[in-house]
Amino acid sequence: MAQNVIFTNQVATAIQELLAARPHNMVVWIADTNTRRLMPTAEHPVITIDAGEEHKTLDAVCQVWDQLNALHATRHTLVINVGGGMVTDLGGFAASTYKRGLRFINVPTTLLGAVDAAVGGKTGFNCHGLKNEIGTFAPATDVIISTRFFDTLPPRELKSGFAEVVKHALLSDHEQLMQLLEHDLDAPIDHDTLLPQLQASVGVKQAIVARDPLEQGERQALNLGHTVGHALESLTMQRGRPVPHGYAVAWGLVVETVLSHLRLGFPSTDVHRVAQFVREQYGAMGITCDDYDVLIDTMRRDKKSVNGEIACVLLASCGDYRIAQQVSPDEVRTALDIARDMMGE
Amino acid sequence: MAQNVIFTNQVATAIQELLAARPHNMVVWIADTNTRRLMPTAEHPVITIDAGEEHKTLDAVCQVWDQLNALHATRHTLVINVGGGMVTDLGGFAASTYKRGLRFINVPTTLLGAVDAAVGGKTGFNCHGLKNEIGTFAPATDVIISTRFFDTLPPRELKSGFAEVVKHALLSDHEQLMQLLEHDLDAPIDHDTLLPQLQASVGVKQAIVARDPLEQGERQALNLGHTVGHALESLTMQRGRPVPHGYAVAWGLVVETVLSHLRLGFPSTDVHRVAQFVREQYGAMGITCDDYDVLIDTMRRDKKSVNGEIACVLLASCGDYRIAQQVSPDEVRTALDIARDMMGE
Repeated sequence: MAQNVIFTNQVATAIQELLAARPHNMVVWIADTNTRRLMPTAEHPVITIDAGEEHKTLDAVCQVWDQLNALHATRHTLVINVGGGMVTDLGGFAASTYKRGLRFINVPTTLLGAVDAAVGGKTGFNCHGLKNEIGTFAPATDVIISTRFFDTLPPRELKSGFAEVVKHALLSDHEQLMQLLEHDLDAPIDHDTLLPQLQASVGVKQAIVARDPLEQGERQALNLGHTVGHALESLTMQRGRPVPHGYAVAWGLVVETVLSHLRLGFPSTDVHRVAQFVREQYGAMGITCDDYDVLIDTMRRDKKSVNGEIACVLLASCGDYRIAQQVSPDEVRTALDIARDMMGE
Repeated sequence: MAQNVIFTNQVATAIQELLAARPHNMVVWIADTNTRRLMPTAEHPVITIDAGEEHKTLDAVCQVWDQLNALHATRHTLVINVGGGMVTDLGGFAASTYKRGLRFINVPTTLLGAVDAAVGGKTGFNCHGLKNEIGTFAPATDVIISTRFFDTLPPRELKSGFAEVVKHALLSDHEQLMQLLEHDLDAPIDHDTLLPQLQASVGVKQAIVARDPLEQGERQALNLGHTVGHALESLTMQRGRPVPHGYAVAWGLVVETVLSHLRLGFPSTDVHRVAQFVREQYGAMGITCDDYDVLIDTMRRDKKSVNGEIACVLLASCGDYRIAQQVSPDEVRTALDIARDMMGE
C-alpha cells in the first residue's frame, strides 16, 4: 500500500522523472473532456472519458477497458490518470482490474482530488445509484500534487476541497488548523503557502491509511464531519438544490465539533473559530428545525451506523479523535441548534 | 494472500465450522443454475447465476452486485461461492469489488475448479471476447475441496481437470506423477486415493503462488503445457469443434515435455509415459503438419510471448522447471512431429 506522493509545481518534469524510474512498455493517459487539454504531448495515447460525476459509470469503465485492449496494453503498461476525483477513481478502478492490475500514477487537477480521492488507494465508480459502492483498494504507485492546476478552479470547487484540508488539520494539529483558517478562498492562490500546507494535509491522510489501509478501524477517522455532512448533502439533493460535497462536509465539521464539545470537551474556542470560518467561506447551512427528522433518519442509515444507532467520529482536541462514537438523536438536535446559532441561522 | 484450503468429504460440517470461526453479519451463497440444488439449507439467501462459460459476463457480475445490494450486504457479509471455475471466478470478482471487498469462501464442484480456479487468488470474467482479461487478485479466505462433487461429473469434465493435476506433478515430483498416470479416468472415482492426491496437487500450486502471488515471475510456471495448449484450443474453436480446455492442456503437456527433452534433456522415458497416458485418456490431437503455421502464429501472440518470440515453461526433470524459455518455430515443428508420432497420429 506504499504510495509515493510528490509535491511540486513542476509537473512535467516530475512526470518525466517518474517515467524514467518506472519500467514500462507503454504509457497510456486517462483524462476527461476537461483535462484532455492538459496533456503535455501527443507522445502517448490518451483515453478520454466524459467529464462529470454523472459519467462515473460502469459504461465508462468498459470504454476504458476496451480502449486499453485496443491499444494492446499489457501488464507492463503504465497508466497516468489526470483529472479530478472522478478520473482518478474511475481510471484507477479500470487500471486495477485490467489484466488484474496495471500500475497507475495519479495527477489530481482539483484540490478535492489532491487531498482526498487521489491518495489512499480507494478506486471506484457509481453503479445503479450506489455511490462508490463498487471498487478496489489499489493505490496509485505515485501521486503528483501541484497547486498550479487550481488557478483555474472556480472558488466553489476550491472551497469544496478545502473542507477536507480543514478536516485533516482537525484530526492532527491545532497550529495547522489555525493557519488554514486564515485563508480567504476567494482570493488568488498563494502557491508558496498552499503547497506545503497540502503536503502536511495529505501526510495526515497517508499516516492514517498506512495504519489501516482496508478501513477496518482507524481509517474511519477520515469520516470526521461526514455523518452530518452526508445527511446535509442528501437533503439538498432531495430538494433539487444540491450543494458541492465539500460544502456539506464543512457544515458537518461545524456540527460534529459541537458534538465533540458536548461529549468530549473539545475546546469551545476552536468550535467558534471553525464555525466562523465556515460561515464566512461557505455561507449558511440553510436548514430549520423542521429538517431535523429527515437529517437524523439519513444519519441512521450511514455506513458507520450499527443497528440504526447514529455513529460519528468525535474529537477530544485537535488530533485526539475517537471513531465509532454513538450519539443520540437528542444530542444531534442540540448540536444542530447550537451550530445554526453560531452560523447565524 | 494466505489461503486456508480444507480437504474433506464432509463438506456441510466444514462449512458449519468455518461459519462459526469467521465473524459475519450475514451469509450469501453464490451458485449457478446447476449447483443451486447443492445448497444445504434455505437458511441463507442464494444468488443464482446462469451456468456456462458464455454467461461469465459483466452483465452477470452486475446482477450479483445488484442482488448483494438488495440483500443489504455490508463489508461484514460473508460470500460462499459454490460451483465450477466460472462461479468461483465471477463470484470472487463480484465479492472482491463490492464495497471494495467482501470476504468469500470457495467450494469448487468440479475437479478443474478445485485444482485451478478456486485456489490462488485470481478472479475475473470474460469481457467483449477477452477471456479473463478483467479481474482482481483477491484470494478466497478459505477453499473447501471435496471429491464427492465429482461423482456426477461427466468423464470429459473429470479429464479436463485431471490435466492440471498432471501438470502440478510435472512441476514437483516424479513419484507423484507416476502414481497419477495409473488412473483410469473412465472408472468410478476412488475417493480415498484421489483426495490426498488433490491435496498434494493443490499444495504445489499454493507453494508457487505464495512465492509470487501477483504473477511477476515464478507463477508463470503454472503455464506449463499452456503455450501449446492454448494454441490447440484456439485451433479447435476456429474449426467450430472446440475441445475442453483440459484436453488441449493435456496435449500441450505432451508437446512441451518433448520440447523439454530436446532443450533441457527431460528424460525420454517420462515423455513416453505422459504421451501414453494422454493418448489413452484424451485421444489424438487431430492435427496435421498443415496446421503448424496457424498454431505457431497463435503461440507468438501468447501472453508470455515477448516481441513475438514463442515462450514456454520447460522442464529439466520433474520439479525442475524453467520459465520464459524462448523456442524457435523450427523447434516447435520438430516437437509437434515427435508428439504426433508418439500419439500415433
